[in-house]
Amino acid sequence: MYRSHNCGELRIEHKGQSVAISGWLNASRDFGGMTFIDLRDRYGITQVVFNMDDDAKLCERARKLGREFVLKIEGKVRERSNKNLNRATGEIEIEASKLEVLNTSKVPPFTIEDETDGGDDLRMKFRYLDIRRNSVKDSLIFRGKLAIETRKYLDSQEFIEVETPVLIKSTPEGARDFVVPSRMNPGQFYALPQSPQTFKQLLMVAGMDRYFQIVKCFRDEDLRADRQPEFTQIDCEMAFVTREDVLNTFEGLTKSLFKTMKGIELEDFPRMTYDEAMVKYGSDKPDVRFDMEFVELDDLVKGHGFGVFDNAELVVGICAKGCAEAFSNKKIKELTAWMQRPQIGAKGLVNVKCLSGEIKSSVGKFYTQEQLSEWCHRFEAEEGDMLLILSGEAERTRKQLNELRLKMGHDLGLIGEDDFKPLWIVDFPLLEWDETSERFHAMHHPFTSPKKEDVERMLNGDHATMKSLRANAYDLVINGAEIGGGSIRIHDRALQSKNFELLGFSEQEAEDQFGFLLGAFEYGAPPHGGIAFGFDRLCAVMNGQSSIRDFIAFPKNNQGRDMMIDAPAPIHEEQYEELYLQSTAIVEEV
Amino acid sequence: MYRSHNCGELRIEHKGQSVAISGWLNASRDFGGMTFIDLRDRYGITQVVFNMDDDAKLCERARKLGREFVLKIEGKVRERSNKNLNRATGEIEIEASKLEVLNTSKVPPFTIEDETDGGDDLRMKFRYLDIRRNSVKDSLIFRGKLAIETRKYLDSQEFIEVETPVLIKSTPEGARDFVVPSRMNPGQFYALPQSPQTFKQLLMVAGMDRYFQIVKCFRDEDLRADRQPEFTQIDCEMAFVTREDVLNTFEGLTKSLFKTMKGIELEDFPRMTYDEAMVKYGSDKPDVRFDMEFVELDDLVKGHGFGVFDNAELVVGICAKGCAEAFSNKKIKELTAWMQRPQIGAKGLVNVKCLSGEIKSSVGKFYTQEQLSEWCHRFEAEEGDMLLILSGEAERTRKQLNELRLKMGHDLGLIGEDDFKPLWIVDFPLLEWDETSERFHAMHHPFTSPKKEDVERMLNGDHATMKSLRANAYDLVINGAEIGGGSIRIHDRALQSKNFELLGFSEQEAEDQFGFLLGAFEYGAPPHGGIAFGFDRLCAVMNGQSSIRDFIAFPKNNQGRDMMIDAPAPIHEEQYEELYLQSTAIVEEV
Repeated sequence: MYRSHNCGELRIEHKGQSVAISGWLNASRDFGGMTFIDLRDRYGITQVVFNMDDDAKLCERARKLGREFVLKIEGKVRERSNKNLNRATGEIEIEASKLEVLNTSKVPPFTIEDETDGGDDLRMKFRYLDIRRNSVKDSLIFRGKLAIETRKYLDSQEFIEVETPVLIKSTPEGARDFVVPSRMNPGQFYALPQSPQTFKQLLMVAGMDRYFQIVKCFRDEDLRADRQPEFTQIDCEMAFVTREDVLNTFEGLTKSLFKTMKGIELEDFPRMTYDEAMVKYGSDKPDVRFDMEFVELDDLVKGHGFGVFDNAELVVGICAKGCAEAFSNKKIKELTAWMQRPQIGAKGLVNVKCLSGEIKSSVGKFYTQEQLSEWCHRFEAEEGDMLLILSGEAERTRKQLNELRLKMGHDLGLIGEDDFKPLWIVDFPLLEWDETSERFHAMHHPFTSPKKEDVERMLNGDHATMKSLRANAYDLVINGAEIGGGSIRIHDRALQSKNFELLGFSEQEAEDQFGFLLGAFEYGAPPHGGIAFGFDRLCAVMNGQSSIRDFIAFPKNNQGRDMMIDAPAPIHEEQYEELYLQSTAIVEEV
Repeated sequence: MYRSHNCGELRIEHKGQSVAISGWLNASRDFGGMTFIDLRDRYGITQVVFNMDDDAKLCERARKLGREFVLKIEGKVRERSNKNLNRATGEIEIEASKLEVLNTSKVPPFTIEDETDGGDDLRMKFRYLDIRRNSVKDSLIFRGKLAIETRKYLDSQEFIEVETPVLIKSTPEGARDFVVPSRMNPGQFYALPQSPQTFKQLLMVAGMDRYFQIVKCFRDEDLRADRQPEFTQIDCEMAFVTREDVLNTFEGLTKSLFKTMKGIELEDFPRMTYDEAMVKYGSDKPDVRFDMEFVELDDLVKGHGFGVFDNAELVVGICAKGCAEAFSNKKIKELTAWMQRPQIGAKGLVNVKCLSGEIKSSVGKFYTQEQLSEWCHRFEAEEGDMLLILSGEAERTRKQLNELRLKMGHDLGLIGEDDFKPLWIVDFPLLEWDETSERFHAMHHPFTSPKKEDVERMLNGDHATMKSLRANAYDLVINGAEIGGGSIRIHDRALQSKNFELLGFSEQEAEDQFGFLLGAFEYGAPPHGGIAFGFDRLCAVMNGQSSIRDFIAFPKNNQGRDMMIDAPAPIHEEQYEELYLQSTAIVEEV
């Protein structure tokens, strides 16, 4: 037996008991006559004391122990004279009578503390040490608890978790698939699922009705920061539902998770159309923890000789409350430069300062005080406020202003630390026209249903009509992060075929890739819809973190490498042969 | 809104209520004046009645509906005159006032009933219809419930579910890996995990202490019947534990699952050593639902002139209670022929019948009545019993007798239908000597610790000693099926290196493949051990099923194909190029 208690368990009421604990040496302090050791495990830290007077030999041994040694300590619980009330076990210590070194440790390459001196690469290579740090350990425990709470809630709502296969078929749509050569079927490959989309729809055809799965998905994309080639979804689907059924169910789940995990009661989630979100925030995932809504000025600013505004498709701005004084010319110059970086690409930034008695503006020579006053009025600006105005092509300008708005929100401290503001974005466009390839892409995915009132137009409309179709799709956004998205699906074979046609599939291609689904729609497919939450992202957002990496036990870096196990790696020649493959890669000798 | 209630929900207390239900037309019966429809969903079946007198037009429409049409019915709940008490909704029916056809259906290729007329291939191709059948649907629901109950139990025991990566590194040990070419790292491959073994051990080094995961694992094996290339494990690991800690924890889990899922209270699981199991049952997964233990006869049968026995390494038999009369010469001949099939390969089968006043035997001419009587005595045989005796090389003979014992147990009806008899098999050999390759293989896996008392012999013993080492490994067996297995792991770098050396790894190979684990053992690896249950198998065994296939939503066939989606499949030339690969497969044109 290695322990009678763990390192987070002992309290004053255990005083006098003989106990055994095991764990890692977190820190030790030697005071000559006495040596103190903090022993750590997943559950906490317990102080152990060795006394020269009681057992000099034991104390000498204790002095020589290094950090991260694995120890088993036996002894008696006693009350501390010098209590540490910040620690759950801080009222007691163990008077050691026996010490067993279960394993030694080299000096770790970085300190196992909340604030570590390890860089990212080192932390990834020694991830098993990184996880000993509270911040990472607690993130993984949070994730585990969130998963089980999710399952309990969905179980209580009669959802059944069904495992869908990982070895499926490559469908060259959306992102790139990872593929897996089949040894038993030469020249053929499985693909890893980008999502269980078609399988969950087939489960609806199969009558399973309320399906969910917390499931790994895979995308072979060039990794942007904070993307992982494998990621986890809470994947759900329901039969005989309308959009409101889905939204209410998963609003219920989200509220329940915030309540259970964080003790936070969320208010009902507002719903906002995609169009409204774009007009008000220039983003389909607006951070509504602060206001600063967009205000359009075209009618007020055009025709007064300022060419930039006159020629712009859109003139739009935000109001930064109380910033007129604080933003010096230098600061505004910096802000303008920030907006002009290639990542954002704004041409310029117009400012209007509502100061006492005078309105100052970078475009003041084109407009009268009265005209500028009208602008301020439209913004409901008060004395001391500053307007920041962009102009240009409508869509691009809105996106640029979104970046500015988010920066101002952060810089001005408008965002409460423990503030969570979820909302539903609904009524996305069904199709996006891609100018380069001259074809439509599905904004959500090819199985998304148009809104009921748009079905007729979709079946019979012209090209221009297609651009205006609305999807019965929805996203859950919290604090500016997209947590999940879903849609009511097409369950009619003819409509699904029409959608594939619009997306540029030939009949043969549609049949080859999705014939099983089209076939299934002929055997009594019920109306159905669903949603998927990004589980890694949900973990991060609920903890106010911007990176998902610490919520993944063994993440990969931006080159898709696992630094710890050093994967991917070359395979043996026999493996190539068995798989009927040859490499064409020119690889330098290792 | 598609429904106010589901099809399994309405009872006599809903009488008079206006309701809406949706589901599939399971069956319809037309009685001229009235048409009855059974509407089915996941939850049950509700009878709907259409009446010519009330609404002739509606009734006419109802008559034309086909099987598996998807319908929405509105109407009033009324008491049935002719109640069906076998059905939860059998006291009521719905008097239809409105009918909406949500989708039509072609005639299914097989009947959606408990006993279907669909063959395996057809059922797999149309799996979404097969799942509509109660037997498959209930199996999937059982699996879903078993998963959540497993998680609840392990959560209550402070286990944390941690997801380990799916894209890992190929380690050419054990079974074959599926590999995944990396586009971003030309010439390099990920591998899919055969189990999360090394990751869970690293989590122990990381201090996570009690880890579990219900997780997909992958093996690219030539598929035997009832093996799947992807399968699911309940995977667990604990730090600071001895064998008894692990066994007690997972005995607790198993008992809890049987209680919750089946209402069965299991008794404490006996523990049996590997050696004992081989001697008593000729198998390391004995079915102990019936006795019929092996009895060895060497000392009694040798030296009496019967050469077959005299030259045998082992003479061993079982006693079939009360079978002496029932087993005619013809029946014994059949049994002998069954044992002589190449799958079993017995040379012959000796029988001894304890009849009243006389003992008859196929080897009667070599032995006196008194001698035969001694045999019967050793078997504790009574009048009417029959002994069945095999002889030959010890290991092979025991395996053959195991087959005979299982057949007799089944044929004689000795196995109770709802009888569950779990036991732990412990003290497996650590290493198996493979005559062909002239090297040791790990009986469990290369991370398994020898028993404490064998460590010294392992580090310093000779070749012969190695064969006698016992592993600190254990299997859970229920009703003759291996449910899971595990071991206390090595946590000492030197011992792990020694084990790799015994298994024929060069130092460089061990470092290349498992350097990360050996490295981790230098930074304070705690003593640890764990277990993994085969989740698919557990589902099947708990339901008295021999096949796991109906507990997997979308299984693959024996060629590793998903017949429904037709995977694996060829990929596009561009995909080969992006992955720096060429195919060497000669594939016929499709």
